[in-house]
Amino acid sequence: MKKIGNQTIKFDNPPTILETASIVGPKEAQGPLAKYFDQCLEDEFWGEKSWEKAESKIIKETMNSAVAKSKIASSDIDFCFAGDLLNQCISSSFGLRDSNIPFFGIFGACSTFVEGLGLAACFIDGGAANYTLSTASSHFCSAEKQFRFPLELGNQRPQSAQWTVTGAGATILSKNGTGPFVTHFTPGKIVDMGIKDSNSMGAAMAPAALDTLVTHFKDTGRNPSYYDAIYTGDLGYIGKDILTELIATKGYNIKSNYNDCGVMIFDKDSQDTHSGGSGCACCASVFSGYIFNSLKTKKLKRILLIATGALTNSTTAQQGESIPGIAHAVSIEL
Amino acid sequence: MKKIGNQTIKFDNPPTILETASIVGPKEAQGPLAKYFDQCLEDEFWGEKSWEKAESKIIKETMNSAVAKSKIASSDIDFCFAGDLLNQCISSSFGLRDSNIPFFGIFGACSTFVEGLGLAACFIDGGAANYTLSTASSHFCSAEKQFRFPLELGNQRPQSAQWTVTGAGATILSKNGTGPFVTHFTPGKIVDMGIKDSNSMGAAMAPAALDTLVTHFKDTGRNPSYYDAIYTGDLGYIGKDILTELIATKGYNIKSNYNDCGVMIFDKDSQDTHSGGSGCACCASVFSGYIFNSLKTKKLKRILLIATGALTNSTTAQQGESIPGIAHAVSIEL
Repeated sequence: MKKIGNQTIKFDNPPTILETASIVGPKEAQGPLAKYFDQCLEDEFWGEKSWEKAESKIIKETMNSAVAKSKIASSDIDFCFAGDLLNQCISSSFGLRDSNIPFFGIFGACSTFVEGLGLAACFIDGGAANYTLSTASSHFCSAEKQFRFPLELGNQRPQSAQWTVTGAGATILSKNGTGPFVTHFTPGKIVDMGIKDSNSMGAAMAPAALDTLVTHFKDTGRNPSYYDAIYTGDLGYIGKDILTELIATKGYNIKSNYNDCGVMIFDKDSQDTHSGGSGCACCASVFSGYIFNSLKTKKLKRILLIATGALTNSTTAQQGESIPGIAHAVSIEL
Repeated sequence: MKKIGNQTIKFDNPPTILETASIVGPKEAQGPLAKYFDQCLEDEFWGEKSWEKAESKIIKETMNSAVAKSKIASSDIDFCFAGDLLNQCISSSFGLRDSNIPFFGIFGACSTFVEGLGLAACFIDGGAANYTLSTASSHFCSAEKQFRFPLELGNQRPQSAQWTVTGAGATILSKNGTGPFVTHFTPGKIVDMGIKDSNSMGAAMAPAALDTLVTHFKDTGRNPSYYDAIYTGDLGYIGKDILTELIATKGYNIKSNYNDCGVMIFDKDSQDTHSGGSGCACCASVFSGYIFNSLKTKKLKRILLIATGALTNSTTAQQGESIPGIAHAVSIEL
């Protein structure tokens, strides 16, 4: 691998995405992408006594499903990269503690899935691994409880709020294979434009997505039209519109081939999800479900996946801080 | 780089540790390693309005200090790896949000510093970077508030408890240089032996340190005596004794050349720190201060640094869960 331009890593022998898996909750099961997920749960507990334990079970079983589908032994996976939204990333560390795979805990808020996918690709192309696993999870109930209000309060949510996806996505990369290939990785910088409304995460994260997207185009010499599709992680309806407008001022037109996983995963009108989906699992499950399917069936041949994260918590909000954003991008090509 | 044995990465062109920096709080300033830190603060707030903001300032200024001492421009640093103990790793992301360096958020609890150092070395040896920055922080007051009890309560602490280090350490790696070199990286697996006492973190983490240490010896074919010194991150007095005993049962004797950063940073008798120091900054500041000095002055020529982390939070403790541990190791040699 080598760095090209300011901050993009180009892989010399692009790793193959061998297999993916996704498990989602009951609300996601009613959304337009339901048929692409491996498993849809009937309730948010999945037989566990707490939402946190349920989230750990989801990431664990998603990992197990990806390994089973890939037909490689889990002992052949050299390294695992995982993270989530819970304090101290407990859903990953408890969910994967029995995996017996060397473990890298990562935190990029909702950008975690692509951060892990990019790091994993670096390990493979750099020569340290033959197989890697990257995974990320989120859970509507554990996230609401932790970041906002007790669900029992029945608090009203503003129209700019997003709905945290319950679920997980997992991806196994292989050194050898016939694609889809991870060809480039553009890790993002932290961008903070001063947005303080924690019910408007899309607006807070859109400038970070803009920064990474423009950098990716400059570093690679590519234009938006190079890609069949460009997907952001969870900007939602509001953030998607902001990004589309902002990038036009930089001379790039993404109107015809750009969508956001948070816009895609729910039906806005019937599901009352306001500005759309969010959470690590939004991008992770939509990629591991719908997008990977589109690549395997060659409906899409070149995509850019940009996961976005808001690097904030409830303490910083209480202390009057703004919301720093970050966005990490990977190019995936046949 | 290439993988050797089960889970160790051997670097083909070992990156040089170009420079380090460390800033610590007032209690650490009264400890036996005080003279090795770049800066010792007079109070826990450092002019900020909250402990969280103080911790962000500490990691920011530690990064700035490392960059200034290295005499390279911060714009020449390709990627930054950072993390901390606060929920959603806010001290890193707020502290480094103005750095303008592509950012990887990582979470390995108190193992974070070595996780970042190892990832950074992989990026350099793999070809993706010429310079990297790795940093980690912790803060006694923000950690106590978040993980245990309000400080104002004046709660008594059991003798097995550890004292979270206030501070940060930062390391700049360079592709070219004359050493000290990062030669090997053994990332750890999650190990959970069922310990549930969150006032006995050393005991919870010792089995993970054992697993990584034995794996490192097996993977590299080295014995403990190969190293001038072996340092764990923050097992403290109790965890240090457990590790020394456990590894003897595996046929390795580390009694003569092993110490723990948590044991070294405080004077147990005069400082009332019970089982010793802990926190991301324990290993980060002791390495970036004392140990790096010993390498530069050639008092030590070959060391193994194993940072240990407890992947737990207050919710998992309340839900009756045990404490999973992890340990990541790097070999550093002249």
